Amino acid sequence: MSKSIFSVIVAGGSGSRMKSVIAKQFLPLFDKPILSHTIEKFLQIPDNNIIVVLPESDMFFWEDIIQSNETLLAAVNTGQIKSVVGGVTRFQSVNNGLNAIAETTGLVAIHDGVRPLISVEKIKDSFAQAQTSDSSILAVAVKDSVRVVKENGDSKIIDRSELRLIQTPQTFNLKLIKDAYALGELPHFTDDASVFEQAGHKVNLMEGEYKNIKITTPEDLAVAEALLNK
Amino acid sequence: MSKSIFSVIVAGGSGSRMKSVIAKQFLPLFDKPILSHTIEKFLQIPDNNIIVVLPESDMFFWEDIIQSNETLLAAVNTGQIKSVVGGVTRFQSVNNGLNAIAETTGLVAIHDGVRPLISVEKIKDSFAQAQTSDSSILAVAVKDSVRVVKENGDSKIIDRSELRLIQTPQTFNLKLIKDAYALGELPHFTDDASVFEQAGHKVNLMEGEYKNIKITTPEDLAVAEALLNK
Repeated sequence: MSKSIFSVIVAGGSGSRMKSVIAKQFLPLFDKPILSHTIEKFLQIPDNNIIVVLPESDMFFWEDIIQSNETLLAAVNTGQIKSVVGGVTRFQSVNNGLNAIAETTGLVAIHDGVRPLISVEKIKDSFAQAQTSDSSILAVAVKDSVRVVKENGDSKIIDRSELRLIQTPQTFNLKLIKDAYALGELPHFTDDASVFEQAGHKVNLMEGEYKNIKITTPEDLAVAEALLNK
Repeated sequence: MSKSIFSVIVAGGSGSRMKSVIAKQFLPLFDKPILSHTIEKFLQIPDNNIIVVLPESDMFFWEDIIQSNETLLAAVNTGQIKSVVGGVTRFQSVNNGLNAIAETTGLVAIHDGVRPLISVEKIKDSFAQAQTSDSSILAVAVKDSVRVVKENGDSKIIDRSELRLIQTPQTFNLKLIKDAYALGELPHFTDDASVFEQAGHKVNLMEGEYKNIKITTPEDLAVAEALLNK
């Protein structure tokens, strides 16, 4: 990598869908919290500067996590991992993470803290594509038939070959995505690519990984364990 | 149920995606083949007549399966389960299954043999909805961001709240779906609902189940085991 590289790991979720008082990113996946698995993947990228975005109320969990994980603790002590407080929406949380990066040039991967199964190779590929084209968004083809539903309940089939399910990391030219976030939040933003697109930039897709699931339910956690065991 | 009810279980896949010489529906999911789990779910629907559609080359597997499973063997011996040979495409396989039903009135659920995690309650609900509205198609909301990709590689975000991922069972008025299949195959048919829709009928959706996955890869099999263990 010739440019400075950064990763914003968004761990701002409330955990309400997990029927747990603990936010989902702190739930154990085998030997350690989901979030620790995720961060350790990004630590394997050379010279990566990591910003973890957390709810203020969960900062004591974060302290527990790093005190009990030598790898993470070392990276926190050298300044390779920083933590910042998130906002009310995902947009605000990512924006806080981006604002914690003083540099204005480089590349930044934005990733969900609850996607621990991402492969290190795929993260590298995402940075490499963003270096040449300013954006790299992981996406997978849709295996199921898909229908579009109208307000009256009617539906019609649409061509699934044209559709892609979007994952993270979503990796960008740092300056362009910072500037895009500075334009403010709109209701249709569901991810970082939609923010980047709204600012007039081209979104480049890259083949993602089906195993790279987002853990949002107890079933997802069981699925993640099964996939990790493979 | 006041109408005669039938279920066509489509087990015609070649298994090529499983990196296995055994077709995927015959692979073991814990104590028995995937297909046996699936059929046993449909056997729990009272007075259900089951037609299993299989590739001709796999009929000896089927014989093995029923000889080693008392529940299935009993149902085969009473005629509650019949087997028929499938075709080259899924359309042809379903059509062969439908043609094996002599009756012309009633309801028929069409289901993928590699979706063993469907709940019995959901199958019942699907028959109940089809009884009043002639069709009932299981569908789930899309959790991920979705983009539409053009031929030149450009993509744009679309509103995921309007999209549904389609599952099986897809349950229909028997006469209407038989007549729809008799009209012949078209390239855009990816499921039974698209055949039904092409014939001019209204497709009614019903809330599906995220756990009702289609097992098409080794990872899916691991996921199915994890979900069954829950």
